[in-house]
This record gives sequence, structure tokens and C-alpha cells, in this order.
Amino acid sequence: MAASVFESAHLAQLFPVGEAGRLFTDSADIRAMLLVEGALARAQGEMGLIPEPSGRFIHRAAMEVQIDPAALAPATAANGVCVPELVAAFRAAVEAPEHAQYIHWGATSQDIIDTGLMLRLRQVLAQYDTGLRAVLGALATLAETHADTPMAARTWGQVATPTSFGAQAAHWGAPLLELLNELPALREDALWVSLSGAAGTSAALGPQAPALRARMAETLHLADPRRSWHADRTPVLRLAAWVARLCAALGKMGEDATLLAQSGLQEAVPGGGGASSTMPQKQNPVAPAVLVALARHAAGLSATLNGAGLHRQDRDGAAWFTEWLTLPQLCLSGVAALERGAALAEGIAPDPARMAAVMRGTGGLIHAEALSFRLAGTMPRPDAQAAVKALCLEAGQTGAELADLAARDFPEADLSGVFDPSAQMGQAPTEAHAFAAAVRAL
Amino acid sequence: MAASVFESAHLAQLFPVGEAGRLFTDSADIRAMLLVEGALARAQGEMGLIPEPSGRFIHRAAMEVQIDPAALAPATAANGVCVPELVAAFRAAVEAPEHAQYIHWGATSQDIIDTGLMLRLRQVLAQYDTGLRAVLGALATLAETHADTPMAARTWGQVATPTSFGAQAAHWGAPLLELLNELPALREDALWVSLSGAAGTSAALGPQAPALRARMAETLHLADPRRSWHADRTPVLRLAAWVARLCAALGKMGEDATLLAQSGLQEAVPGGGGASSTMPQKQNPVAPAVLVALARHAAGLSATLNGAGLHRQDRDGAAWFTEWLTLPQLCLSGVAALERGAALAEGIAPDPARMAAVMRGTGGLIHAEALSFRLAGTMPRPDAQAAVKALCLEAGQTGAELADLAARDFPEADLSGVFDPSAQMGQAPTEAHAFAAAVRAL
Amino acid sequence: MAASVFESAHLAQLFPVGEAGRLFTDSADIRAMLLVEGALARAQGEMGLIPEPSGRFIHRAAMEVQIDPAALAPATAANGVCVPELVAAFRAAVEAPEHAQYIHWGATSQDIIDTGLMLRLRQVLAQYDTGLRAVLGALATLAETHADTPMAARTWGQVATPTSFGAQAAHWGAPLLELLNELPALREDALWVSLSGAAGTSAALGPQAPALRARMAETLHLADPRRSWHADRTPVLRLAAWVARLCAALGKMGEDATLLAQSGLQEAVPGGGGASSTMPQKQNPVAPAVLVALARHAAGLSATLNGAGLHRQDRDGAAWFTEWLTLPQLCLSGVAALERGAALAEGIAPDPARMAAVMRGTGGLIHAEALSFRLAGTMPRPDAQAAVKALCLEAGQTGAELADLAARDFPEADLSGVFDPSAQMGQAPTEAHAFAAAVRAL
Amino acid sequence: MAASVFESAHLAQLFPVGEAGRLFTDSADIRAMLLVEGALARAQGEMGLIPEPSGRFIHRAAMEVQIDPAALAPATAANGVCVPELVAAFRAAVEAPEHAQYIHWGATSQDIIDTGLMLRLRQVLAQYDTGLRAVLGALATLAETHADTPMAARTWGQVATPTSFGAQAAHWGAPLLELLNELPALREDALWVSLSGAAGTSAALGPQAPALRARMAETLHLADPRRSWHADRTPVLRLAAWVARLCAALGKMGEDATLLAQSGLQEAVPGGGGASSTMPQKQNPVAPAVLVALARHAAGLSATLNGAGLHRQDRDGAAWFTEWLTLPQLCLSGVAALERGAALAEGIAPDPARMAAVMRGTGGLIHAEALSFRLAGTMPRPDAQAAVKALCLEAGQTGAELADLAARDFPEADLSGVFDPSAQMGQAPTEAHAFAAAVRAL
Repeated sequence: MAASVFESAHLAQLFPVGEAGRLFTDSADIRAMLLVEGALARAQGEMGLIPEPSGRFIHRAAMEVQIDPAALAPATAANGVCVPELVAAFRAAVEAPEHAQYIHWGATSQDIIDTGLMLRLRQVLAQYDTGLRAVLGALATLAETHADTPMAARTWGQVATPTSFGAQAAHWGAPLLELLNELPALREDALWVSLSGAAGTSAALGPQAPALRARMAETLHLADPRRSWHADRTPVLRLAAWVARLCAALGKMGEDATLLAQSGLQEAVPGGGGASSTMPQKQNPVAPAVLVALARHAAGLSATLNGAGLHRQDRDGAAWFTEWLTLPQLCLSGVAALERGAALAEGIAPDPARMAAVMRGTGGLIHAEALSFRLAGTMPRPDAQAAVKALCLEAGQTGAELADLAARDFPEADLSGVFDPSAQMGQAPTEAHAFAAAVRAL
Repeated sequence: MAASVFESAHLAQLFPVGEAGRLFTDSADIRAMLLVEGALARAQGEMGLIPEPSGRFIHRAAMEVQIDPAALAPATAANGVCVPELVAAFRAAVEAPEHAQYIHWGATSQDIIDTGLMLRLRQVLAQYDTGLRAVLGALATLAETHADTPMAARTWGQVATPTSFGAQAAHWGAPLLELLNELPALREDALWVSLSGAAGTSAALGPQAPALRARMAETLHLADPRRSWHADRTPVLRLAAWVARLCAALGKMGEDATLLAQSGLQEAVPGGGGASSTMPQKQNPVAPAVLVALARHAAGLSATLNGAGLHRQDRDGAAWFTEWLTLPQLCLSGVAALERGAALAEGIAPDPARMAAVMRGTGGLIHAEALSFRLAGTMPRPDAQAAVKALCLEAGQTGAELADLAARDFPEADLSGVFDPSAQMGQAPTEAHAFAAAVRAL
Repeated sequence: MAASVFESAHLAQLFPVGEAGRLFTDSADIRAMLLVEGALARAQGEMGLIPEPSGRFIHRAAMEVQIDPAALAPATAANGVCVPELVAAFRAAVEAPEHAQYIHWGATSQDIIDTGLMLRLRQVLAQYDTGLRAVLGALATLAETHADTPMAARTWGQVATPTSFGAQAAHWGAPLLELLNELPALREDALWVSLSGAAGTSAALGPQAPALRARMAETLHLADPRRSWHADRTPVLRLAAWVARLCAALGKMGEDATLLAQSGLQEAVPGGGGASSTMPQKQNPVAPAVLVALARHAAGLSATLNGAGLHRQDRDGAAWFTEWLTLPQLCLSGVAALERGAALAEGIAPDPARMAAVMRGTGGLIHAEALSFRLAGTMPRPDAQAAVKALCLEAGQTGAELADLAARDFPEADLSGVFDPSAQMGQAPTEAHAFAAAVRAL
Repeated sequence: MAASVFESAHLAQLFPVGEAGRLFTDSADIRAMLLVEGALARAQGEMGLIPEPSGRFIHRAAMEVQIDPAALAPATAANGVCVPELVAAFRAAVEAPEHAQYIHWGATSQDIIDTGLMLRLRQVLAQYDTGLRAVLGALATLAETHADTPMAARTWGQVATPTSFGAQAAHWGAPLLELLNELPALREDALWVSLSGAAGTSAALGPQAPALRARMAETLHLADPRRSWHADRTPVLRLAAWVARLCAALGKMGEDATLLAQSGLQEAVPGGGGASSTMPQKQNPVAPAVLVALARHAAGLSATLNGAGLHRQDRDGAAWFTEWLTLPQLCLSGVAALERGAALAEGIAPDPARMAAVMRGTGGLIHAEALSFRLAGTMPRPDAQAAVKALCLEAGQTGAELADLAARDFPEADLSGVFDPSAQMGQAPTEAHAFAAAVRAL
């Protein structure tokens, strides 16, 4: 076990985070903060708040300067934030004190760190967008292809009534589609520029502070909340709740895939199955297990983040640090879940023959509800239900087929279709097609 | 400690839930489920799916029948859900088997329980709406009245720069305003009718199932998700995330109020202070502590709910039960937090004189940033900052006023206003007024 | 959904808490606090700290007085704690001001509430003891009876190698046995008397405070921590961690029972299966689902409690309230889990024939590891493993039995016993018997 | 924000983990697993289960072989565990197939990974031991030095009665002392060897499996649980609960230090205070904030770990992965908390003058309880309490000193010492000395 699975070389593909891994590194961190300092200076220069040439100079320098993260460590430990030392190192590096003095003019550490974070979260959201479309595309294909492939629906682990595998895929996809549809609003509502100075009043930024913040927002393609949010973590909490739901939705797919793949049922093979170090026959559903684990992790992290929503007073180091401990892990959990979820959705191979066998294996009990409603056409439903319940009991005890018992006891009844799974899937095929169509229409 | 503070007689006003308490009782539970059964039957009757008189009869009977919750207990323990026994009791009570057989036609327990829950959650949301408006109204008054009342902003518990008490109130209100603005969408997106039968396929409801569900949604003033959501807890998770944020926002106000009220600072009195059993002088900030505790509870409950988003297969008793254990507690936490939050917002009494004294007590250090920026007008800012830092150190060691030291060292500088809190509040008054205006415009 | 499932009439047996339910009621709460006040006064009287007759009078009165919880509500809401009003009501009720003035002498609310809680927690622990012995007894019977009943062990949901059902029961019981063995220490280490006055210094209790606390501890059968613990929640956190593990252990049994009972596998019937409101054939594993849900709830509650371990300063209302919100729910979750766990352990019916069928259904693949080790007797193990892997693949594709393929390719090998589950259970029977013996030796 | 603060170069000293950081790296991970493979082979050789020379060869090779973690990544992603590929790479590297075939004989991946983890957890516990002693030593010095330094105790943030700073230090240390005292038992009860093969039955290890496991335990200095614990996470949960409590205890110290350091109170300076990027005067209590954040993180992680206690069946990839995601973060949180906690305990500088000033600032109200008990010597206590309450109110309104008002109204009463903090600290000095003595006696 490495400190973080997302940074481990040997676990790198078990919990894959692709490009997003680079977003949560020291260099990306510092790069983003420098970008913010650069954008701030340029905007201040353009607005005449600092000398215009200094603004341009700082903006350009911010893109070029190289800062060694490790060199910031001692001061960061003392200050809690790396910005004072980063600004000092930046100033020292540019070797132009006349301009350098205008670096970080009127801003506070949290402005820089939070805005820098937001720049990276925008890229994370972009990766979520891509990942969601990949999963949804694969699920739509499954839903369409198997819209009419009968399988046993299960409730409490027990066979309930027939459904279709396409409907299962649609049900996996439904919450993901909701999440994708919320993504544009999330981009608006969770990616905020921060610029309100030492204690949220923008005092050192002067009366043009709101205009400056608006300009920064425009330049950096972030939203302008039109106020200080140092101690109001609304955007972070919105994002966290969304990611937790994302991981939960993918975790549900993982749970179901694991259950479908169980020996003795094998209604689907998840694909990419894993070998055992000692059992030659094993094909473990690894990706599904990863999805479940990430969902559990995400739920925990999001709770801790929620707790960190209680920033005290105007800036709260403890609450803020708590975000640092959890938010990157949460974001990366979402990325890894999408990566493995897409592969699972693309690789999972349903086995219609096994699905049919599982349904047959119930001795027709899966059709008990259908039978009871058919009989309820000619007798009160409570009577029909009681009669069918008795037949189910008999079937269970004797091993007889429910169809045969029903024919025996209700020779006059029209039982056509009752024991045919493909005639008993209700809205499942329709829901499968509707989901696929909704995805195709994206 | 009672099993649940929300049901304790002696804690009833410490954690007040008002009308919402009644929504989470056995009788409200059963009443809501009967309402759903009634609406279902009437809709089915109108659509010709069951005899129309039976539909009307059941609808009427559902409003009148009395079911003893305790009588359902044994069967509920066995079945996991009370619906089978509730339906049986309902059927028995109406003494009209010709109609009674059509009760619960084609539905499953989860349809009834989840839709019944949604009916109550709609009322919970209404109470949240009312509660939010009450808190916001009181905060808007505070923001307006004290838009220009200087006080010390604090970061890391340390005095930072001047702000205004009105801005504090605005900052407490800002996340609440966001939440109120999200409420209409939440009503649309989190209050869903459930009607998809035994395993989500609506098979027993026949081909008109989607139309039936739509009609139910309309009748019950719920949204129609146009699909099964037995195993997709999106609406519940949306609600949970919103309530957790609500409690966090109010908890933050509680934290701040506790800190403002501290002996030795006493910048505000929370109102309604509590007596000690042994210390005659005590005025404890009880309501603020309640707000913090509810926020902590809500964060934990919402994490557990998130984990319960991983419903397995088509219906998952374990995940669903987990909702039963947590969602009512979460909803009631939100209600209690709003109740006490409103009282706190109405009762909190800022003490401008104490606020001024606290600022003066820093020996002018609260104006260090302002001084450094003023000096930066005539020297490079790093130099200014270093000079001010040295003065701060001297002030700290000697007890001298920063203003005096600055005048000593920079006799030529124009330091007017630098040491005047009311001239150094930056955007605080503006943000306070803007918040109040936004609330007034609701 | 009721506010708390543990107080709902219709859910009372689904989440049964038996006697423990009474421990977390207003009246038990007040009764316990009065007991503490009585014990305090008597001890103080005996030690000459207050007049001895007053001590005796208060002690007796505390057992007899009737206090209406609802009457305490308004003052409790203001004070945060009910004790000031409870003491006032007690004083008023006894109608003997000469004695009554010595009620609550030198104590603080938290002394009374925390010690009162401990008295009830002691009873909760007693119920845990009883419950654990019941579960363990039933599991020991299962372990012994089925020590040699072969079944398929599963890893990642896939059949791995043979084990025995008795070993499964032993594995369910093992963590419970650890918990039971920890119980005496928990009783010592988590049930503390609290008596340290207003702010933990016992100042108003005078120099004999430590002796007084020791005497109280002895009288009340609690441990004396020999210091103040108002703000050190060690005992509560110890208990919470233990209960969370208890619920996790029982939740694991619930998960496994659900999986064993799945349609198509049916290796065991959990007993007490639940009916569906629409599907006549259903026998839902309700108790197992309850166990899983309680485990999820307990994990969340225990996290919140852990967070409440951060009491600020000398007494922290917010952290303390958080305990009130969570600890009773956690304790009752443990009780309900034991109740349903015991019934499950007593009622679960393994089906050896189905177990054998499941193993046969793998076409002998469950014996792949055994085969590879047998072959490794005559060839390098990597070669043996590769050879067996190839045979497993062939078996999977052709449906041939692994035994036949092995006989075909390794005609000279002695494969006796390799394909006989009862010869391949390794230490499973031994572990089953050892567990049973350990339980019998309790 | 880096993916994990513990692996970030610029945050490395803000969240310092020292040597422990190296324990949670890929190379330490692989090194530990190889150690386990080596110990296994040697033990098997000595017991005659594999050729003795092979056992020795493998044992030696395991210490020398170099495996590239990155090379394991693709297979690990497929298999879920790195062991199959690690074993293959190990076999290939040793270039001695006659011995290599005996590598990993009869073990399963989880045996190797869990035992390898335990070897590292032993070192983590050793670091906890060291860290705890450092914190306790520093706190004992504080407790002793300031046993009689009066300061205001606070409840609900309000001044309550006098205590001593030494007692505060003792209260910070008390839960840490409990934790240290539990450490030997934790070492016994939470550091288990795992050796039970593919599915917990040790089948491939043969009848000597228990003896082999015992020998492994002895060699590796781990405890032998005498059974399989693949799916029973008792040791992990024990450790997690302990670490969560550790972080909570240190977090409490962080909370208190932050509050003591507040501007306007400044009763103590935490030491190592951090600079602001814009406010020259700031000395932020950074270490205390880190402690609080780590405590919040640890509580969340430990909840997730608790949930992962529900391993399904005989090995559960999802639950196990969840440990990988959380346990290293939890362990490192504990290490970092101890590192910063020790520095805080060593560096915190109480300011007795400020403490006295804070007490004086209450106008004597801090002595209200003492006054009421003094007066209760000559009048009924309820009367005394009411009289004092009235005086407190008057003092609050008029600014008069409580001492003066008391002298005015009770001229005959002996009020000596009542208004002297150093005479009103109750057991605080005693508890401080007792704590220091207990630490010195370690």
C-alpha cells in the first residue's frame, strides 16, 4: 500500500487517473498559482491599479519562471500556505524589483490557492465530461443491443420478475445521465474565481476590486461569485456532492457486475478478469471491485469535506487544510471510477443463455406475479395471489414446474405468454431504448 | 439521552422540529402510504385499468381507514416492509372485497413507500423554504443595520483587517441564499413519484404503466422521472447533499456566534443564553452549539446515505433500510437547524463598542496591511511590508501603538484613514447591502 | 419512516431493541440522573460534606420523586442541559428546603448527565453480553454440526476452493468472540463516573473531591478515572469503536447470508424470510439486510462520534450535543443487530445438497488449485499451474469436467481425493471445531 | 493540492511524516512482500514442506532481488493484486527454476499483502510509541511547570472558574496517556500474520499449516491469530480506532491552542506561527490547524475503514481495496499529528500575565460559583445562588467588580480567597502533578 494509490507505480493502472494525475502534483499546483498571479497582475495593469508594464511583465514571467516545490517546504510548514514563499521566490527569480514589487498586489494566499485549484478543477470537470460520455456511450450500446434480452430481475438477491439486460444497462446509466446533464450547471456554479483579499473585504485591492475580480473571472474562464467566499465553501461542496454521486452510480454498476459474474450464475463476464496467485481457474471481477471501493472512499471523503464546510470566521486554516487532505483524493476517485467504469461498460459480456438458464432454474417461480395477475382476471386478486402462493410452495417442495401446476389447477385459464420471459419484461425494453436514445441525442 | 432527540419530550425545544416532527411518525407514514394507494386506485379506475367505482371507492376509503401501526409490526419484521400487511389490513377494513381486491394493483411495496416518503419530503421542503426565508430575513436586517459597523475580521482566529458586522451577517447568509435559490430545482429534481412495480419493469401494470405513472405524478404534485428509480437514489442523494450543505451553513453561523460571544471578547451576545447548574454568571451560547452539532450529525448521516446510493440489483433491502435509518434524522436536523438558526439570527446582539475595543486592543496591528499598502505608494511594496513587519514586532514587544510608530518612522507619509477602521472596511459594507438587497428582492 | 426506527411502532420488530429501548427514553434519562444526584448526596452526607440527614433524605427522595420530562423542555432549550431545571423541579418537589438546598452540591450538569449515561451504558453492555452469547452459541452449534459439510468458498464472488459451512459459521463468530473477550476490559475502561464540577477542577466539591468521586464510583459500580474527563471522551470513543466493530461483524454475516440465499444458488435459507406485496414466490432475506443496514449506520455514527472527540476547552456544548445525537442511535443499532443476528444464526438453514450442487456446477474448477499442487509433486509448480490453467480454459469452453481432462492428460498421476470436496477442506473443519470449543469454554 | 499531502514536496513539512513516509511507498510495499515470501519459504524449508535448500535460497534471494514496481502495473490492474506478477518476476529474476518453483508455495496474494502490511504497521506503531512519548514528555513539563499557573477554564467558550494551565496540559495529555498504555495490547492484538491460503482453509499448505503459520509469526514478530482472517478485519479495525482516537486527542489540543492564541485573548502563543502573504502582523497558529484537520480526516477515513469491515464471503476485493485507499492515509495522519503535536507541546508558550488579565477582565464573574458556595455556608444554597446571580447581573450592567458588590451586600461574610484565582483552582494543580508523575513513571 502506497500513501496514495493514485501515486503508486504498481497500482497506477488498477486505479487509473490518466491526465488528471498530473493535475494534482506539486508542479501543477505551483503552475496554477503562478497563472493566477500572472492573470491578476495583467488585469491590474490593464486597469491601472499597478503600472501596466509591470502587469505585463509579471504575467509573462509567471508563465516562464521555474520554482522548486521542495524549496518552499520549510516556509510552508511555518506559514501553513506556500504563497508567501512562492511570491518571494517568484520575486527573487524575476530579477526585476521594479516590477516584482507588484506581484500578488492586494491578494491573499487563499485567493491564489483557491483560484489555482479552480483552474485545475475545470480540467477535472472536463475529464469527467469525457469519461461520462464514454461510459454512457458504452451503456447505450448495451442497452440497445440487449433491450430485448430477457434476464431475471432481482430484489433482495432473489429472482423477482423478468427484465432485460438492456434495461439493466439503462438503469446503470440513468444516474450518470443525470450527472452529465448537471455538469454545465456545475461548471457555472462550482468554478469560482476568488479575489477578496486578506479577510474577504478586498480592502487592499481598492474600490475597483469587484471590477478586477470580474475581469479575472473572465480571463480565467471562471465564474465571478460577486463576493468573498473564503469561508463559504458552497462551490467545493457542490462539486463534492456531485463526485460522490458519480462514484456511487459507478459503484452500483460494480456491485451488479460482481453479482452477475458469480460462479454458479455467470450471467455476465465483466471482462478483463483477474488471475489468482494460487488458483488457476480464477477470473476475478477486479474492475467492479475497484468501482465499489472508490464509491466507499468517495462517500467518506465527501462527508469529511462537508464537515469542512464549517469554516470559522473569515478564513479557517483547519477547515481549509481538511479540503486539501480530501478533495484531491475525491476528484481522483471520480476519475479512476470513470476510467474503469468505461472499460467495464465496454467489456462486460452478458450471456443470454445463462440468463435464460437462471430464469428456468427457478422452476417458473419468476412468473408467479404474472400468473397471479392473469388469474386475477377471473377471480379476486387476493384469491389469485393466495392460490399462486400455494402453488409456489408446492413447486418449491416438489420441484415441479409452476407452469405445470398452474395448468393442472386452472385448466380453463388462458395462460399464454405467462411463462414466457420475453413476453413479461414490461417496460424494460422501452426503458432500454429510451435511455439509448437519450444518450445518442447528447 | 433519548433514542432520538427529535422525539424526546425534554429535548423537544432544544432541537425543535415543529410541524415536521409530525411528518416522521408512524401515523404520518401510514397516512402517506394510504394516500398513494388511493391515488393509484383512482388513477387506475379513471384509466379503465381497474373498475372505475372500485378506484373511487378505494380512493375514498384510503382517506378514512384507520390502521393501527403496532398491528403491522410482526409482519413488517418478517417482510421487511409494512406494505403487504398494510394492504391486507386495508382490504380487511373496507369490508368490500369486490373493490378491495383492486387495492395495490400492480404496484410493489417500494412504489408505495418511496412515493409516500416523497409526499412528506415535499412538506419538509416547504418547511425549509419558510425557514430559510426567516433566517435570511433576519440576516438581511442585520446586514443592513450593521453594514457599516466596523469589527475585526479574523483569520486563523487572529485579527486580520477590519470588516463590518453587516458583512459577517451577509457571509452567513450567502450560502443560505444559494440554497434557497436551488430549492425550486430541488423540488423538481428530488421529488419523484415511484411506480414501476415488482422489479422496475411495471410488468403487472400493463402497457399503460407510463401514462399511469404520469397521472399519479400529476395528482400527487410530484415529478415523473419517466422510468424506474427503485435502485437509483438520485433524488434522495440530491436532497441529502442539499440538507448537509444547509446544516453546514447554519453550523458556520453557530461557530462564529460562539466565538463572538467568548468571554473576554464579547463582540456579540447570541441571545437566549443558557444558565449553568452551578455557575451563577453563565450565559452559554446554546443555540450556536446546537447548530454546530446538527451540522456534524448531518455530515455523517449524509455520508451514510451516499453509501446507500449503491443499491444492488433491482431493489436492495439493505441499502433501502439504511435510508430509513438516516434520512428522517437528516431531514429533522435541517428543520431544527433552521428553527434555531432563525432565532439566533433574530436574537444575536452585536456590541459595536466591544468590537471597537477588540480592534483597539490590537494596538493598531489590525491596520498593518493597510499601512503597508499606504507606504507602498512611496516605496517598493516588499520594503514597505518588511518595514511594517518590523514595526509590528516592535509594537508587540513594547506595547506601543502601531500608529505612533508609523508616524515616528514615516513622518512625511500621509497616513490619514489608515488607522480608522471605518475607512478600512473595503467592500464589506457593499457586500452587506448587496446581500440585504438580494434577500429583499426574493 | 419514523424519526427513529427504534421508536416506531410498526418498525419495532424489524429493528428490535427489546429492553434497551427503555434505556433511551426520557423517563430512563431522568431516572438515571436522579439516581446520580441521590448517590452524590448520600456520599456527601456520609463524608460530612453536607449534613448526613440531608444526604439520606435526598438519596431517598431521588428514588421516589416524579418529574415530568415535558415540563423541563423550555428551560432545557435555553440552558442546553436539563439539569438546572431538573434540580429546581426536584428541589420544589421534595418540599423540604432545609435538605433540598444540598441537592447537586458542587456538581455540574455534565457530571450528572454523563454519569447518568454511564449507568445506562452499563445496562447496554450487559445486553450486548447476553446478545453476543446468544449469537455465539448458535454459531457454535452451526460450526460443530457443519464442521465437515463441504461448500464452496468464494473470493471476489467466484468459487475458490472447498471449505465447510461450519468454518463459515466460525468465521462469522470469530470477530464476535474477540468482541466478547474485550467486553470485561470495556466495562472497566468505558464506564466512568464523572464528578469534577463546573470546569473540571472540582473546586466547589472541596479537597475531598477525589475521595468523593471514588466513593460515587464504588456506589454506582462505575470506574473512577481519577480525573476530570468532561473534555476527554476516551470512554465514549472506546465504546463507539467497539459497537461499530460489533455491527460490522454482524453485517458481514448479513452480507454472506444474503449471498448464500440468492436464487440460483440457495445454499442456505436465512429463515424468517419476508413476503412481497406483489410477488407470491418471494422469500426475502430480511434479517440479513437489516444487519447490513445497521452496520452502515453504525459506521457513520461512529465517525461522527469520533469527530465529537474534539471537545474544545473544558466543556464543549457542540461536541457534547453531537454525542446526544449519535450515541443512543449507535447503541441501539448494536442491540438490534444482536437481536436479529441471534435469530439469523439460530434460523439459518444450510442446504448441503445445494452446496454440493454449486461445487459440481463448476465442472471441477473449484479443485484447480488442489490439482495444481498434486501435479506439482511430479513437475515444477509453475508448469503444473500453467497446465491446469490450460485445462481450466478448455473445461470452461467445452463444458468438460476438469477431472476428466486431468485424467486424460495425466494418466499416471495419482489424483485420488483431488476432486473430492470433503478431502479438500484443509483446516476448515478444524477451525470450525476450535471455534465451537472456544465458545463452549466461555 | 497534491494528490496526497503526504507525498507533496512543498507540503512535506506542513504534514510531516518523517520515516513513516518511506513505509508507504512502492518499494517498501514490495520489499515487505518479498520479506514475507522469503520467511514463508525458509519456514517451509525448515519444516520439510519444500526442499530445505530451496527455502534458504528463496529467503536469501527475497532480500536481494530488485523488482521494478512500474513493471507490475499492467498485471496488477488486471489481477487486482500485484502478487501473481510479483511472484512471476521474482521467479524470473532468480534464474534458478529448481528453487523458484517453491516461491509462494500454498499461499495466496492476501497472505502476502496483509502480512507485508503488518510488518510495516509494526514500524508505524513504533513511530507512534516514540511520538507519543515525545508529546507526553513535553506536556508533562508543561503540566509540572504550570501546575499552579492560574487561568480561566472555559465551558461553551465562556469563562467558567479558575483552573491552571498545567491542568490544561494534563487534560491534553490524559487521552494520549491512555493511548500509550493501550499500545502494547494493540501490538499484540492488531499485528497478525496472515497465512491461510486461497480461501482461508490453508488447504494447499497441508496439515502442518497451523504450525507453519505459528513459525512465520514467530520469525516475523507478529501474532498468530490461529485462524484465517482474510475476511475478518478485526486487527485493522482495532488499529484504525486507535489512530482515530489519537488524532482526535491531538486535534483537541489543536483546537484549544488556536483558541488560546486568539487576538484579544492571547493566553498562549503556539510557537512557530505562520506569516501571511499580505498581513505583516500575522502569526497564525498553523500547527494547531493542521492537528484539527488531521483529526477530521482521520475520523472520516476510519469510518470508511469500518465500513470495509464488512468483507463479503471469504475474500472481498472491494472491501480490501477500500482499506488500501484509506489505511495508509490514516496511518500517516497519525504520524503527522504526532510530529506537529510534539512540536506544539514543546513550543507553546503560555502567558500567565495575559491569563490573569483575562480572568480580571470578567470583573470577578469567574468567581461567581466560589462566591455562591461561600455564601451557602451561611444561607441556603438556592438563596446564595440567586443572590450571586443578581450580583452578576448588576456587575455586567454596571461594570462594577463582583468582589465589591459582594462586600457591599454581605459585609459580614468571610470572603477571603474567594476572589483569588490561585486559591480557587480546586484539583487542577493536583491533576497536573499527577499527570506529570504518571508520564515520568513511564
